[in-house]
Amino acid sequence: MQLVTVDDIRAAADRIRGSVLRTPLIPAPWGDPERPLWLKPENLQAIGAFKVRGAFNAIAHLDPAVRARGVVAYSSGNHAQAVAHAAATFGISASIVMPEETPQIKIDATRRHGAEVVLCAAGQREKVAEEVVARTGGVLIPPFDHPDVIAGQGTIGLEIVEDLPDVATVIVPVSGGGLASGIGTAVKALAPQARVVGVEPELAADTAASLAAGHRVDWSIEDRNRTIADGLRSQPSELTFAHLQTVLDELITVSENDIRAAVREIALRAHLVTEPSGATALAAYRSRETPPGPTVVVVSGGNVEPALLAEILAG
Amino acid sequence: MQLVTVDDIRAAADRIRGSVLRTPLIPAPWGDPERPLWLKPENLQAIGAFKVRGAFNAIAHLDPAVRARGVVAYSSGNHAQAVAHAAATFGISASIVMPEETPQIKIDATRRHGAEVVLCAAGQREKVAEEVVARTGGVLIPPFDHPDVIAGQGTIGLEIVEDLPDVATVIVPVSGGGLASGIGTAVKALAPQARVVGVEPELAADTAASLAAGHRVDWSIEDRNRTIADGLRSQPSELTFAHLQTVLDELITVSENDIRAAVREIALRAHLVTEPSGATALAAYRSRETPPGPTVVVVSGGNVEPALLAEILAG
Repeated sequence: MQLVTVDDIRAAADRIRGSVLRTPLIPAPWGDPERPLWLKPENLQAIGAFKVRGAFNAIAHLDPAVRARGVVAYSSGNHAQAVAHAAATFGISASIVMPEETPQIKIDATRRHGAEVVLCAAGQREKVAEEVVARTGGVLIPPFDHPDVIAGQGTIGLEIVEDLPDVATVIVPVSGGGLASGIGTAVKALAPQARVVGVEPELAADTAASLAAGHRVDWSIEDRNRTIADGLRSQPSELTFAHLQTVLDELITVSENDIRAAVREIALRAHLVTEPSGATALAAYRSRETPPGPTVVVVSGGNVEPALLAEILAG
Repeated sequence: MQLVTVDDIRAAADRIRGSVLRTPLIPAPWGDPERPLWLKPENLQAIGAFKVRGAFNAIAHLDPAVRARGVVAYSSGNHAQAVAHAAATFGISASIVMPEETPQIKIDATRRHGAEVVLCAAGQREKVAEEVVARTGGVLIPPFDHPDVIAGQGTIGLEIVEDLPDVATVIVPVSGGGLASGIGTAVKALAPQARVVGVEPELAADTAASLAAGHRVDWSIEDRNRTIADGLRSQPSELTFAHLQTVLDELITVSENDIRAAVREIALRAHLVTEPSGATALAAYRSRETPPGPTVVVVSGGNVEPALLAEILAG
């Protein structure tokens, strides 16, 4: 299987420059002195999550004549808004397939970018997306199972090494695995001394089980849906799992309470709003299971329900 | 009266480089299309507020032999932590005079930086600080009434113009006036087309009254203490007022409800935690009283009580 290379990621960085925010590394002096801490705040991207990087790269890489036919995506989360936002920037149409049970606030946010929202029954997303592709001639932009999406997310790794060349540990949440595949590929190529640590909720630890088994292990969607970290309920594809086996040094699992405590700490100490998924890397850091040395935690997104954030802050 | 110049601000930028975060301008595509919006997130500084810039510049500019005697400050807010943090970085002692009624959380935060906290009765801060200076030989670092502090805050203005040369409007909160004096001086020198707009809470609008009168007008501390924006309860000094008369094109006042709505919007749309003072520039923008064109709002700080933020988020 052909894996994404650091050159693919460099090409992605050239393609998306100017279209996505070049996020800073934020020093967090309240971290553990033996593991100096920086945050990579991808929640500051226009749609509140790293997903814009992969979406812009995948759309920018299309042949212009193909791109003009528009794009299609299926997602109930940040990928929906990322593709809608990127399509609007390119001035092309976007059709986003979302399950009927998607909260209205997310449907509205996707429509606000000018996308057509196609509602579907639970579990029918991929099938309905194929129908939309057949009907519109648009190009499907998958949420993680595509080299251009992985390379786009990998630009975060380039920026981390550029800003902190002697980084010892990079901690990244794992769901479908596109983010960790891309970042891990960039970091291993450019800072081979660094350890790349994945993190999953204990309640959606399919990748931890898969890495231990040496092959992909399936967890039911009912099991994975138990975690509060709603961005971390997907499972890797063959393509992303092959990357994860290559680039991850270890994978730490965190409890629901750990995740809540990390959301609270990031809000009060780093002054960043994160969704539960976005705080899991800090939760892994707080577990003190990661090695000494300069450490970066990737804050992957900030789209949290206000009532949930209020509840966590009220303690 | 000698005003701070853009050369003073450039020198400050050289002095503080590497010690404070070079914050990005964050595009906010959810803003008004006629007034494209960017946020300058000073809440991401190590102590959660812009105050580190002035504190680092003032301490860095001291003669090393003088600096070795340590520094003294009086503040119940962000200036306390900024001076304590900067002093710790320089490896010198800091004594911070705080009123007895200061919340314990802020006293603890200041001590965590290694500073000595000297508690005093209400209204006695400046007198007690003078006594500490006499006793320790340390140098007083005032919160705003000093050219080096103004020049340090002005580095924000340099960065805004560097990142967005065709900026049309910069909106800045006004309290003691150091922040607006510094930013206004830099912006007027480097982007003369830009309007510099101050913002105050209606309940602490002493500077609005002063600018209208053409001289400083005193509002009682009881009046100023009514606003939820606890970082905007100070009044300009002669020095900062002279700057404000020169650099501000206008001053907008905002209601308490406007401020709360802006805290909520920044949390949910920009994924940043702000204290009420830190959201006032966005509140002014939301009032639609500012002119068309590219607009930057300065998000000055993020040190909010968790219970207050939870209340605002819960709506």
